Amino acid sequence: MHSPDLSRQDAATAPPGPPGSPVQATAGDVLARYLNAQAGDFLRSLRMYSESGSDTASVAEAALSLRMAARRISGTLHTFRPLLDPSWADDLRTELAWLSATLAQEHACTSRLNQLLDALSRLSGAAPLPPARGELHPADAGTAAPAGTDQATAPPRPAGGGLTVGAARAGALLERQLTLARTRAHSAALQALGSSRFHAVADAVAVLASELPLGPLAGAPAAEALSLPAELAERRMLEAVAALPLSRAAHPYNAEALVHGLATASAGEAQDAPWHQVRQLLRLHRYAQEVLHTDADSLLCHAGLVLDRHRDAAEAAAAAAAAARTPRIAPATAYALGVLHADQRHEVEAARFAFQQVWQRATVKVSI
Amino acid sequence: MHSPDLSRQDAATAPPGPPGSPVQATAGDVLARYLNAQAGDFLRSLRMYSESGSDTASVAEAALSLRMAARRISGTLHTFRPLLDPSWADDLRTELAWLSATLAQEHACTSRLNQLLDALSRLSGAAPLPPARGELHPADAGTAAPAGTDQATAPPRPAGGGLTVGAARAGALLERQLTLARTRAHSAALQALGSSRFHAVADAVAVLASELPLGPLAGAPAAEALSLPAELAERRMLEAVAALPLSRAAHPYNAEALVHGLATASAGEAQDAPWHQVRQLLRLHRYAQEVLHTDADSLLCHAGLVLDRHRDAAEAAAAAAAAARTPRIAPATAYALGVLHADQRHEVEAARFAFQQVWQRATVKVSI
Repeated sequence: MHSPDLSRQDAATAPPGPPGSPVQATAGDVLARYLNAQAGDFLRSLRMYSESGSDTASVAEAALSLRMAARRISGTLHTFRPLLDPSWADDLRTELAWLSATLAQEHACTSRLNQLLDALSRLSGAAPLPPARGELHPADAGTAAPAGTDQATAPPRPAGGGLTVGAARAGALLERQLTLARTRAHSAALQALGSSRFHAVADAVAVLASELPLGPLAGAPAAEALSLPAELAERRMLEAVAALPLSRAAHPYNAEALVHGLATASAGEAQDAPWHQVRQLLRLHRYAQEVLHTDADSLLCHAGLVLDRHRDAAEAAAAAAAAARTPRIAPATAYALGVLHADQRHEVEAARFAFQQVWQRATVKVSI
Repeated sequence: MHSPDLSRQDAATAPPGPPGSPVQATAGDVLARYLNAQAGDFLRSLRMYSESGSDTASVAEAALSLRMAARRISGTLHTFRPLLDPSWADDLRTELAWLSATLAQEHACTSRLNQLLDALSRLSGAAPLPPARGELHPADAGTAAPAGTDQATAPPRPAGGGLTVGAARAGALLERQLTLARTRAHSAALQALGSSRFHAVADAVAVLASELPLGPLAGAPAAEALSLPAELAERRMLEAVAALPLSRAAHPYNAEALVHGLATASAGEAQDAPWHQVRQLLRLHRYAQEVLHTDADSLLCHAGLVLDRHRDAAEAAAAAAAAARTPRIAPATAYALGVLHADQRHEVEAARFAFQQVWQRATVKVSI
């Protein structure tokens, strides 16, 4: 595991001027201070990750804070690119995006599985499902079935037809598929963290903490030079929100999110894309506000969380649909996955409704 | 076909007193006038039904107005039972309930099929589904499959995996099952209308039109004697509404209606029952208002329509779940039926939300 020297980002590298007076600093000073802090988080998380070993919780926590720092660095390079060395900024953003995506997969598989199993147990109107292993129908076992799983080994079930049993089988199928995906994501993350490509990213972040490659405009006073890019980030976000079908989302139960529930997967994705984009742009806006030391707007934070929920539900719905494409599953399993898919698509719709509600309140505070 | 003599319910049988002054009439007079009018509708609809022959639209219209009249007669006998010969009223209500239920089935199958096929085409995010025949998968054909239907005969489909095809197959399966059920319901209705049991009902309704079997209290002035039973009907309805989980229904996307989406069918039915009961009690209240010549409250009418929607969606969801229990269906078909079931259960939830909204406005006008 690569462990850059953290002593490089000491007090001597901090920009001149007292920390409490950012108005007197140059734009470069303020950017350097913010990126310095994020780079510190990045490198600390990286060390924590490498030292966590097989402690799953610590590994997950380290990966999370590593990604948080990577997102902030990347977002800042994007928003304030005019003040930086643009080709350096673009290169580092590409590499951080690769790293974030690689590290995000494992966590995504875990949380998606939890979300789907929770939904299944809710849909069964009962206590959480029992461990699904050992309840596999031979038809659901696919190629990865452990030997000896058989319908006859399943415990007796209350009456209610095959559809009730389908929930348990669907849970077992999803657990198998997403656990496999998680294992693969974990290997990919480990491989990435041992790669020379990753070492180059870590070096670049360490360099960033000590000597930020600034552009010629970075010498201007922070107040003016930073506000223009920050306003641009806000405007992009507001324009993307304005383009959302908010008036439709304001009507509960508009059945919009499930319109393509049985159409091609790409039709559903096309519908979700503008919402996912707003989620990204809200984040960029929030990071720009952090750079400017502007207090976080709690309504915008809330809106971001709602769009996280939107994204999670969209991905969970897609995972249920993907599981239903597994060859040779039992009809009861497929039925349960259909119910689950629709349930998650309604969660998508619910998140859009919630976003619209939050946004309505937020627009009172945000000047458009 | 039995055709009672309509001349019996002529002007001579109308109760004494000018029609515009119900306050001066006895309770018996007012009841007789209302029931007389309903019995006239019943007998006219019956004649229309028998004369419609194979004209499906006319038969359906006649059956609808026959059921409307039967419901009003039955509801009036129920609400104003204290003013009538109670054992006669109970007997006739039993027979009218049998007749209504028998005649309702055919229409219910038709409208349920239309609702499910509309939902499937909406869920496919496309134009309405093409005629589903000829697209049957052998696995979906069940026992009633026409010979020669084969996957190979299905027209080419846009890409998107088996799940897209599942919608067409689910549509074909539902069409087959509900058409069969409708044919059976039609035979049962014809058989019922030719039965001596039905002739006895028709005779009883004809008698009701000429000489209503009143109880001793029917001689009291209408204003007092009718208001007490009518108020009781209203109170029963209001109490049933008050017992509904309206505060939960007021939160959009509460996922309540799908809580038992994968549990036993009876769990879902138990959840719906109080809403179905309110629907019935609202109707009884409305008929009592008609007897009292009170203007129909448009908000209560609206609330009733919303609960019709609730009932239709609950039954459509149950039909989708029942179709998914068909042996040997393809997983893609079962998946589509699962999505369809969940979609209709969300329509149930949407109807509850809408009811709560209407009720909130209605309570301003209704005195509790």
